[in-house]
Amino acid sequence: WEKLVFKIVETARNARSLGKEDPRRVIHSVKVGFAIALVSLIYYFDPIYDGLRVSAMWAVMTVVVVFEFSVGSTLGKCVNRGIATVVGGGLGVAAHRLASCFGNDIVEPTMLAASVFLFAATVTFVRFIPQMKARFDYGLQIFILTFSLISVSGYLNDEVLDMALTRLSTVMLGASASLAICILIFPVWAGEDLHNLVADNIEKLGNYLEGFGDEYCKTLEDGNVKDNKALLEKYKSVVNSKGIEESLVNFAKWEPRHGKFRYRHPWGQYQKIGGLTRECSYRLDTLNGYLKSEINAPSEIREKIQEFCQSMSFESSHALKNLALSIRKMTISHVADSHIVIAKTTADNLKNLLKTNSWQQTDLVEIIPVVTVASLLIEVVSCTAKIAECVHELAS
Amino acid sequence: WEKLVFKIVETARNARSLGKEDPRRVIHSVKVGFAIALVSLIYYFDPIYDGLRVSAMWAVMTVVVVFEFSVGSTLGKCVNRGIATVVGGGLGVAAHRLASCFGNDIVEPTMLAASVFLFAATVTFVRFIPQMKARFDYGLQIFILTFSLISVSGYLNDEVLDMALTRLSTVMLGASASLAICILIFPVWAGEDLHNLVADNIEKLGNYLEGFGDEYCKTLEDGNVKDNKALLEKYKSVVNSKGIEESLVNFAKWEPRHGKFRYRHPWGQYQKIGGLTRECSYRLDTLNGYLKSEINAPSEIREKIQEFCQSMSFESSHALKNLALSIRKMTISHVADSHIVIAKTTADNLKNLLKTNSWQQTDLVEIIPVVTVASLLIEVVSCTAKIAECVHELAS
Repeated sequence: WEKLVFKIVETARNARSLGKEDPRRVIHSVKVGFAIALVSLIYYFDPIYDGLRVSAMWAVMTVVVVFEFSVGSTLGKCVNRGIATVVGGGLGVAAHRLASCFGNDIVEPTMLAASVFLFAATVTFVRFIPQMKARFDYGLQIFILTFSLISVSGYLNDEVLDMALTRLSTVMLGASASLAICILIFPVWAGEDLHNLVADNIEKLGNYLEGFGDEYCKTLEDGNVKDNKALLEKYKSVVNSKGIEESLVNFAKWEPRHGKFRYRHPWGQYQKIGGLTRECSYRLDTLNGYLKSEINAPSEIREKIQEFCQSMSFESSHALKNLALSIRKMTISHVADSHIVIAKTTADNLKNLLKTNSWQQTDLVEIIPVVTVASLLIEVVSCTAKIAECVHELAS
Repeated sequence: WEKLVFKIVETARNARSLGKEDPRRVIHSVKVGFAIALVSLIYYFDPIYDGLRVSAMWAVMTVVVVFEFSVGSTLGKCVNRGIATVVGGGLGVAAHRLASCFGNDIVEPTMLAASVFLFAATVTFVRFIPQMKARFDYGLQIFILTFSLISVSGYLNDEVLDMALTRLSTVMLGASASLAICILIFPVWAGEDLHNLVADNIEKLGNYLEGFGDEYCKTLEDGNVKDNKALLEKYKSVVNSKGIEESLVNFAKWEPRHGKFRYRHPWGQYQKIGGLTRECSYRLDTLNGYLKSEINAPSEIREKIQEFCQSMSFESSHALKNLALSIRKMTISHVADSHIVIAKTTADNLKNLLKTNSWQQTDLVEIIPVVTVASLLIEVVSCTAKIAECVHELAS
C-alpha cells in the first residue's frame, strides 16, 4: 500500500518536472481540452446536423485522434484523414453500388467481403513500405476504415451517399477546429524544434569537448579518475537522437511558412547535419572510455602530447559552439572555420613533434592511452570540419 | 509522366523486396484483410445487434485500429482499448447522470463541457509521462474519446447506459476477433523478434570484426584502402537499433507464455545487452574510420603490432559470434569466455611488447594509426567481456 502511495507521489513529481522542463506541454494539454470541449458542445447542441447526432460524433473523434503536439503532425494527420476519407468514401460508395446491382442475397455480400478483403490486405501491405509509413501511415489506416464502413453499410444507395457526405463534412469540421486551435494558440512548430534540436546537439558535443579538455588535464595531473556524470549524460542523448530527428523532419515537411522558415525549407540538410553530429558523438563516446582509463605518473613527452590534446579539444569545442550559434542565427559564421584551422594545425604540429626523436627515452606503453586520445581527437577535428561544411551548405 | 511511371515501378519493386525480406509481412496483410472482411460481414448481416448497425460499426473500427503486426502490440492495444472503454464509459455515464440531475439548459451543458475539458486536458498531459506513453498511450487516447462521446451524448439516461454497454460489447467482439486471428494464424511474437534482434546485432558486430581483421591486414599489406561497403552497412544498423528494441520490449511485456519464453521473461535484460552492444558498435564505428586512414609502407614493429590486432579482432569476433549462438540456443556457453581470455592475453602481450625497446628505431608518427587501432581493439575486447557477462546473466 505504501508502495502505491510512493509510486503516485513519484509520478506526480515526474509530471511536474515534465511540465517545468517544457511548459508547452501544459499549454498543449489545455489546448486539447479546449478543442474537445468546444466540439463536444457543438455535438451536444447539434445545431447543424439536426438529428444526425451519430455523424456529429465523428467530429469529436477527429479532434481526439488528430490533435497532436506540433503543427506539422496535426496538419499531416488532417490532410491524411481528409484525403483518406474522400478516397475511401468514394471507393466505398462505388463498391456498394456495384454490388447492389446484382441485388442477390449471396452475390452481394460475397462481392463486398471480397473487395473489403482485397483493399484491406493490399493497403496493409503498402503500410510496410518505409516511405509510405513515414508520411501516410495514418491516411492508409483511415482509408481501410472508411472504405469498409461505407461499402458494407446496409443502407440504400441514396442513403449511402448521404452518409458518406455528412461523415466527410463532420470530419472536416473536427479537423478544421483542431487545426485552428493548434495554429492560432501558442503554436508548436516541428520545424523550429528540429532546428533547435540540431543546434542543441552540436552545442552539447562542444560542451562535452570543453569539459573533456578540463577533466582530462586534471586527471593527468593528479592521477585520479573523475567521473563527471552530468557531463556524460548530456552527449549520450545525442547518440540516440536519430528517431526523434526523423519524426521531426517528417512533421516539418507538412508545415507552411512560419517565422524564419519557408515552406520548402531544406529539412533534409538538417538530417545530414544530424547524421554527422551523431557520428562525431560516437567518437566522443569512445573518447569517454579513455577518460576513465588508468594513468600513471606524468612523463615529459606525455605532458607535451597532453598540451596538444587540450588545444585540439578546446578548438573543436569552440568551433562546434560557433556552428551551433550560426545555425541558431541562420548566418554563415567563419569564426568556426578559423578554430578548425587552428585545430588542424595543432594536429599537424603534434605529428611533427612525434617525428622528432625526443621521445626515445620514454616507455611506449605508457604513452599509448595519450596517443590514442590524441588520435581520436584528430578524428573529432575532421568530423567537426565535415559538420562545418554541412552547416555552411545549409546557410547558403 | 515518365517520372511517375518510373516511381511506380520503383515502388512496386521495393514492395516486392519487402515481402521477400520478411514473408510474415505478406501473411500479416492477408490476416488483416481476412479479419476486417469477417467482421464487416457480421456488421452487414447484423445478426446480433438487430437495428443497431451504428454500434456494430465499432467492431469494424476496433479491428482496423487494433490489429498490429506482433501479438504483443495487438494484445497491448486490445487491453488498452478494453480498459479505456470500460473506465471512460463508466465515468462518462456518471458525468452524464450528474449533469442531468440539474436538468437546466445552461447548467447541464456547462458542467458537461467543464468535465470534458478537465479530463481531456489532464489525460493529455499524462500522455507525456514517458512510462505512461510507452505502455498506455493508446488507452489514454481512447479514454478521452469514450468519455467525451458518452458524457455529451444527448440521449436520455437509460439510453446512455444502453449505448455504453452495446459499444463495449462490440468493441469486445472486434478485439477478440483480431486477437484470435492474430494468435491462431501464423502468430508473430514480439518477444521472439526481440530475442533474434539482440542475437543478430551481436552477430553483426562479430562479422564486422572478422571482416575488419581481414581487410585491415590486406590494407596494411598492399597499402591500398579498400572500401567494403557491404561490411560497413551491416553494423550501421546496430548503431541505430535503440528505437526498435525499445518498442519490441514494450510489446513483448504484453505477451503470454509462448515457445521458449515464459510470461515474465527478463525482457529488460535484453535491453541491457542491447545497450552494451550499441556501445560496442560505437567503438567499431570509430575503428571503421581508421580502416580508411593513410598507411605507409610497413615497418617491422608495425607488422608485429598488426599481428596482435588481427588476433584480437578474430578472438573477439569468435567470442561475439558464440555469444549470439548461445543467446539463440538459450544455453550458457563457455566457448566465448575462452576466446575472451585469449583476446585479453593478447592485449597484455602487446603491452609487454611495447615495453621492450625494440621499437627505438621506428618513427613514432608512422605507428600511431596502428597503435590507435590496437588500443581501440583492446576497448572492444573489454566491451565484449561486458556483453558476455550480461548474456550469462540472462541465461541463468
